[in-house]
Amino acid sequence: MPPTPKYKGDKMTIRMNLGENSYDIIVERGIIASADKHFNLNRRALIVTDTGVPEEYSRTVASLCKEPLIVTVPQGEGSKSVTGLTTLLSAMLGGGFSRRDCVVAVGGGVVGDLAGFAASTYMRGIDFYNIPTTLLSQIDSSIGGKTAINFDGVKNIVGAFYQPKAVLIDPNLLKTLPKRQISNGLAEAVKVALTSDSELFEIFETKNVEDNLDEIIIRSLIVKKNVVEQDEKEAGLRQVLNFGHTLGHGIEASVATSELYHGECVALGMIPMCAPEIRKRVIDVLKRCGLYRTVSYDWQKIKDAAFHDKKADGRCVTVITVDSVGAFEMKEIKCDTFIEDARTCLEELRI
Amino acid sequence: MPPTPKYKGDKMTIRMNLGENSYDIIVERGIIASADKHFNLNRRALIVTDTGVPEEYSRTVASLCKEPLIVTVPQGEGSKSVTGLTTLLSAMLGGGFSRRDCVVAVGGGVVGDLAGFAASTYMRGIDFYNIPTTLLSQIDSSIGGKTAINFDGVKNIVGAFYQPKAVLIDPNLLKTLPKRQISNGLAEAVKVALTSDSELFEIFETKNVEDNLDEIIIRSLIVKKNVVEQDEKEAGLRQVLNFGHTLGHGIEASVATSELYHGECVALGMIPMCAPEIRKRVIDVLKRCGLYRTVSYDWQKIKDAAFHDKKADGRCVTVITVDSVGAFEMKEIKCDTFIEDARTCLEELRI
Repeated sequence: MPPTPKYKGDKMTIRMNLGENSYDIIVERGIIASADKHFNLNRRALIVTDTGVPEEYSRTVASLCKEPLIVTVPQGEGSKSVTGLTTLLSAMLGGGFSRRDCVVAVGGGVVGDLAGFAASTYMRGIDFYNIPTTLLSQIDSSIGGKTAINFDGVKNIVGAFYQPKAVLIDPNLLKTLPKRQISNGLAEAVKVALTSDSELFEIFETKNVEDNLDEIIIRSLIVKKNVVEQDEKEAGLRQVLNFGHTLGHGIEASVATSELYHGECVALGMIPMCAPEIRKRVIDVLKRCGLYRTVSYDWQKIKDAAFHDKKADGRCVTVITVDSVGAFEMKEIKCDTFIEDARTCLEELRI
Repeated sequence: MPPTPKYKGDKMTIRMNLGENSYDIIVERGIIASADKHFNLNRRALIVTDTGVPEEYSRTVASLCKEPLIVTVPQGEGSKSVTGLTTLLSAMLGGGFSRRDCVVAVGGGVVGDLAGFAASTYMRGIDFYNIPTTLLSQIDSSIGGKTAINFDGVKNIVGAFYQPKAVLIDPNLLKTLPKRQISNGLAEAVKVALTSDSELFEIFETKNVEDNLDEIIIRSLIVKKNVVEQDEKEAGLRQVLNFGHTLGHGIEASVATSELYHGECVALGMIPMCAPEIRKRVIDVLKRCGLYRTVSYDWQKIKDAAFHDKKADGRCVTVITVDSVGAFEMKEIKCDTFIEDARTCLEELRI
């Protein structure tokens, strides 16, 4: 992995090198107010946001567009649906959008996934821009080109690999984010630290997390950039990004959304995948990030949900394990064994 | 354009060179019975067909699959809908399809467009194979990677560029096709002849069309292959394939489906786009192909429909014109002028 460029506290551009699908991710405080310098907004623009995002964010972007059209979907996973998709498509069609117009997402992962998928299918693909407004989406879902909706109760089962034309990451937008949502995003940063960046892990161990958010975001993006560039369509290496996610998805699907957030489930999902000798360090970091929550589990539900997951394949599952911080292994194990081992681990830890 | 390979009457493979999206189109009489030699059917396979396709075709393919699942949608454009799409997605999800399974289309353009789009979105894309069963789809829609459904009354407005892994073209399947459906497909062959292959045009002028179907199919595919290879995502050159289609789509949308077929509308749409000095030759060929039909027009409806079309852009439209057989020009003209000129031409010809 190449050395991490230092963030100067003003502006940093991360270039995603994906051939004709290449694009820039620009990290800068306050950048939302000059989105038109980085996006071509001199055309029709569908601005997609949700009811949980401060209205001023989408209004700021709209004020920079020649012909803005704001669609606000209800907050929550429920909007990642066929209905959510057709709402956006109808809005574009009704607004006379041509193939040369564009879609701008202003929101978290739900908004980005939904808006990106709509952009990928309208007229077989129009330009898509993303301004993620949560830490989770700034770190994780805004990069990688995975767009999707949920279908028949299964998460992210219908979608497209579709890269944005540009992504703007404005850490100032996180000021309005509840503390628990910050923790939710940190889980993905801990994930990349554990598998690929031991220096980032040390930041979590030794520094104040909130004071170092910009560096945490950038280091996380750079790890993900390197993985996605080598495996755009998730054929192999990119599975490292699923570290903690197989069990995490199982836990997530087996509890009420309000009970545990995605990042909290991934945090729990990572613990059994780490070697016993590093688990104390991992748990300490998760605690520092506000990510160590105990819940009551229904293991049958977790198992059913984990292996309805698209990453499970037949009777075996590919898992990522971490024996020492900053390095990972990929293993094939039986689904049954996987669940039993995870259960034993979490029960011993009394999580 | 490179010289056209000669078809030996037994088998011909046309390689589509599209980088990592490359694939083979194999033309051979009777090839459907050995589809498993060209497709990997040793897995779950969703076979999509429609009520207008002889059942024996999909049964033949199913008999070659390890785990076939046949879904038969109603014949006609109505199946290219959100409902049609969700029907296929639910079938795959219910059948436990993983990212390593596949979709096989056995039918005409409607089936290919719908099945291809479903394959492109399920788990963000699984393998897609195509066995087109009509002349129109063998010549035109099976090649090029354009998949789509109709939405809110607009044709092909939602879809994806998604290349199949392989296409099998079996001219024997055309034996069950009504004569008018043969004519429907020939329109696209006349189109490529006019813009790009004067030798193919001479076949239409001098030889028996039905006796030379294999050569007509292959020559048409080779022209389209060369265009698509240079412009996979329809950024420029590929617009030549829209020759006759702007007006054709307008006519098609303004009449009942049963009144005029797609190819018949395209045939009418090509006439005003040809220079007056070649129009007699063009009309003679269209007559030989059974493509010269007169209808009553509602020009306002045609105009509205033509320019709701995704190829129209603002107030001007890009049109392809042919001054001498085998060569074309691309021009920007005003939508109003375009419609007036077309109307004058067809009225003078009393078509």
